Amino acid sequence: MHSKINTFQTLSPQLIQKLEKIVGSDHFFTESPVLQDCSHDETEDLRFLPEAVLVPGSTAEICAIMTLCNKERIPVTIRGGGSGLAGGALPVAGGIVLWMKRFDRILEIDAANFQVTVEPGVVTETLQNTLREEGLFYPPDPSSRGWSFIGGNVSTNAGGPRAVKYGVVRDYVLNLEVVLPTGTCIWTGANTLKNSTGYNLTQLVVGSEGTLGIVTKIVLKLQPYPVQNLLMLAPFNSAERACAAVAAIFQAGVTPSALEFMERNAIEWAKRYLGDVNITIQDDVQAHLLIEVDGFHLDGLYRDCETISRVLEQYGCHEILFADTDSSKNDLWRLRRNVAHAVKHNSIYKEEDTVVPRAFLPQLLEKVKAVGAEYGFESVCYGHAGDGNLHVNILKGSLTDAQWNEEVPQGIREIFKFVKSVKGTISGEHGVGYVQRPYLDVIFSEAELNLMRAIKQVFDPNGILNPHKIVG
Amino acid sequence: MHSKINTFQTLSPQLIQKLEKIVGSDHFFTESPVLQDCSHDETEDLRFLPEAVLVPGSTAEICAIMTLCNKERIPVTIRGGGSGLAGGALPVAGGIVLWMKRFDRILEIDAANFQVTVEPGVVTETLQNTLREEGLFYPPDPSSRGWSFIGGNVSTNAGGPRAVKYGVVRDYVLNLEVVLPTGTCIWTGANTLKNSTGYNLTQLVVGSEGTLGIVTKIVLKLQPYPVQNLLMLAPFNSAERACAAVAAIFQAGVTPSALEFMERNAIEWAKRYLGDVNITIQDDVQAHLLIEVDGFHLDGLYRDCETISRVLEQYGCHEILFADTDSSKNDLWRLRRNVAHAVKHNSIYKEEDTVVPRAFLPQLLEKVKAVGAEYGFESVCYGHAGDGNLHVNILKGSLTDAQWNEEVPQGIREIFKFVKSVKGTISGEHGVGYVQRPYLDVIFSEAELNLMRAIKQVFDPNGILNPHKIVG
Repeated sequence: MHSKINTFQTLSPQLIQKLEKIVGSDHFFTESPVLQDCSHDETEDLRFLPEAVLVPGSTAEICAIMTLCNKERIPVTIRGGGSGLAGGALPVAGGIVLWMKRFDRILEIDAANFQVTVEPGVVTETLQNTLREEGLFYPPDPSSRGWSFIGGNVSTNAGGPRAVKYGVVRDYVLNLEVVLPTGTCIWTGANTLKNSTGYNLTQLVVGSEGTLGIVTKIVLKLQPYPVQNLLMLAPFNSAERACAAVAAIFQAGVTPSALEFMERNAIEWAKRYLGDVNITIQDDVQAHLLIEVDGFHLDGLYRDCETISRVLEQYGCHEILFADTDSSKNDLWRLRRNVAHAVKHNSIYKEEDTVVPRAFLPQLLEKVKAVGAEYGFESVCYGHAGDGNLHVNILKGSLTDAQWNEEVPQGIREIFKFVKSVKGTISGEHGVGYVQRPYLDVIFSEAELNLMRAIKQVFDPNGILNPHKIVG
Repeated sequence: MHSKINTFQTLSPQLIQKLEKIVGSDHFFTESPVLQDCSHDETEDLRFLPEAVLVPGSTAEICAIMTLCNKERIPVTIRGGGSGLAGGALPVAGGIVLWMKRFDRILEIDAANFQVTVEPGVVTETLQNTLREEGLFYPPDPSSRGWSFIGGNVSTNAGGPRAVKYGVVRDYVLNLEVVLPTGTCIWTGANTLKNSTGYNLTQLVVGSEGTLGIVTKIVLKLQPYPVQNLLMLAPFNSAERACAAVAAIFQAGVTPSALEFMERNAIEWAKRYLGDVNITIQDDVQAHLLIEVDGFHLDGLYRDCETISRVLEQYGCHEILFADTDSSKNDLWRLRRNVAHAVKHNSIYKEEDTVVPRAFLPQLLEKVKAVGAEYGFESVCYGHAGDGNLHVNILKGSLTDAQWNEEVPQGIREIFKFVKSVKGTISGEHGVGYVQRPYLDVIFSEAELNLMRAIKQVFDPNGILNPHKIVG
């Protein structure tokens, strides 16, 4: 664990007074339970207590807070819904947490231009549901969308099942209002679909996990809402064969709107965890693919499903379950979205977010299992197979603390080295945050890391914003 | 015009010897016609003579060249196909030009992962045709694709007609090998569809117009080739009505694969320039929309065309011409792709690359004409209306040099101020390069420009790479 860097300061009574004055006493906290609430996100069992939590209500307040904290060298960490899996919102160096929950307004739905301007504290699913009422579609749908904030989604460049067809958050962000760590407010781009005007500050901030600036307004590109979809669950008696079928589906000319992989234990645990989903899993089934197609015309989608079925059969798929009612579709999606909760419920675990070119998925799965056998850990694997993004949940189970803390990380390093060897990387959608920092040297050269460090320095000369994250 | 910055050096005989040794004497030039060839691109009538032109054959050679030039403070400008419209390849500060034409190999077509690894000197259309033979699709198709290099397309974040459905170059770049101005070679990312690992160096280099590093390998994401398409040309007796129809098409739930706007004189000039396209333009027609839909199944495309036709009729469209043979499609595309050539053939001109949220297109056109009336210039407007990207060709015609050089830029500034007021920007796909630099203050605040300047400094501490471009 990091000790606080010497140059950081703690909050003096005078500073507390000033900060409290900026946000108002109703929005300023120095005691439990708020400090406890902001000491953790969903990352393992990590906790770091901040000195104070501020819940700002405007961009101007954030500018004032940052100007002060930059001058006084106070660490500042931004918090959204708290659903992060890489520890990006952990106040590792203490200091203050800015909790963005009052930035909860959808400012403008511009249906003529298929755009929305939104504050970062809007829950992603709330945004999606509101847009859907207007026939508009914001596709990125991380499993946490029911409680993660859109600002957090921007900060990690979140994905979700539909990324395989529609892309990730960065593909939808047109423009951002950002308060720099020094207190200055900028816009990163323009509200246009195309932009070749200067360096792309927008894409530099997206995915920077709250280390370069504080996002205060987000302009997103939208699409017409695809009104039809079909969903199928395909069981396989070999996980490798299921993975191999994934690349073949795309080669057959179909781009599903979701193409999810679940090992047998992933779906079994989720089924047990939920308790109310009535699906039979045959004894010899080792993995499932959950496949959705969407669009505007059912006839085309049925044709796509036929193409997909033919491919799946070539890879030895068992009988396919077609979900054709809202309730059966919902059941399958609930199973998929609750795998992580089910795993968490079962054991202490570390969740890795490996991503490879999708045809390497069978080899990645094989490698994970081989490393597990060598280091003595069990894993539950599932994820966005269409993107080559495999979530590897490593279970503590009966491992000792010493094995868990010292040996398992070596195994993770071996998995990451394999990922690098096939030109993949260590995070597809969760981010580096705090917990993946020790592995950055597997992925990046010293020259590449130095560039990132220098960029951090440009935005945040005193290093006060979200310290000990990524390269900070 | 800029004078050379004092800290830059000219080539000494010793340095000439060293550089010649790196690339070999067959690939080293200090005299005409090569110096003349590299003194201009397609930007207006601007010319700047370099001291030497090097045609390197490997990444290692470029590393050696940059190490030397960085140490000796020699300006370096990268040149691709020379099709640039913002002066990005002009060696404004003299020094050397690196002409990338020997980087002309398609290194790996990875059909299983829908990816290609390519060197920057491959002509875009050559790449597209080669991929098409394998059923693979690289969509971005700037009008210059028959001679522009893919590396140049990456450097400007090029677009083209199909961007409206498929996005621009940046949406296809997964990973880049880049030689930094200091001579170090890096990779910017991973060969994956999703990546949340560290700052996005890939997207920082894309669109940076050869000011941050020299791209030596490009990994592009591909799609299955859409085997069917339909094309229609829709005439209107009001340019504003034609523009207004554009946003309505998307709102009807159809995303065309191209949605191009051409003023009457644009299509008329192109027709005259080509001489062999047999299309009648009625006297009262003021503008055309060229609309393409593409996909895998003709029945769906016919349905889309019907939807589009209904929308167009609501906006007062005349009789629509459907192109249903390869030769008639080809004629319409040749007309569209030759507008710029036709304008250039007709008059000295400045081409602006304005982009706005697409529903503001009618107002933008109106503003351009109003400013033209005020400042006494004629303009030919056309472009990618589906993206809100309007190319404004301002004709010198009978204007005096004084009017052209002093008054017209004030008019351009007024157009850009309008663009900014509706949250658009000054370049959608051409870049800032050399000629749009004087207008950056219209679009960016000083804080935003300072961030860009500091990023440039991080990559290029001595400012030797492509000086006097963007913020350099």
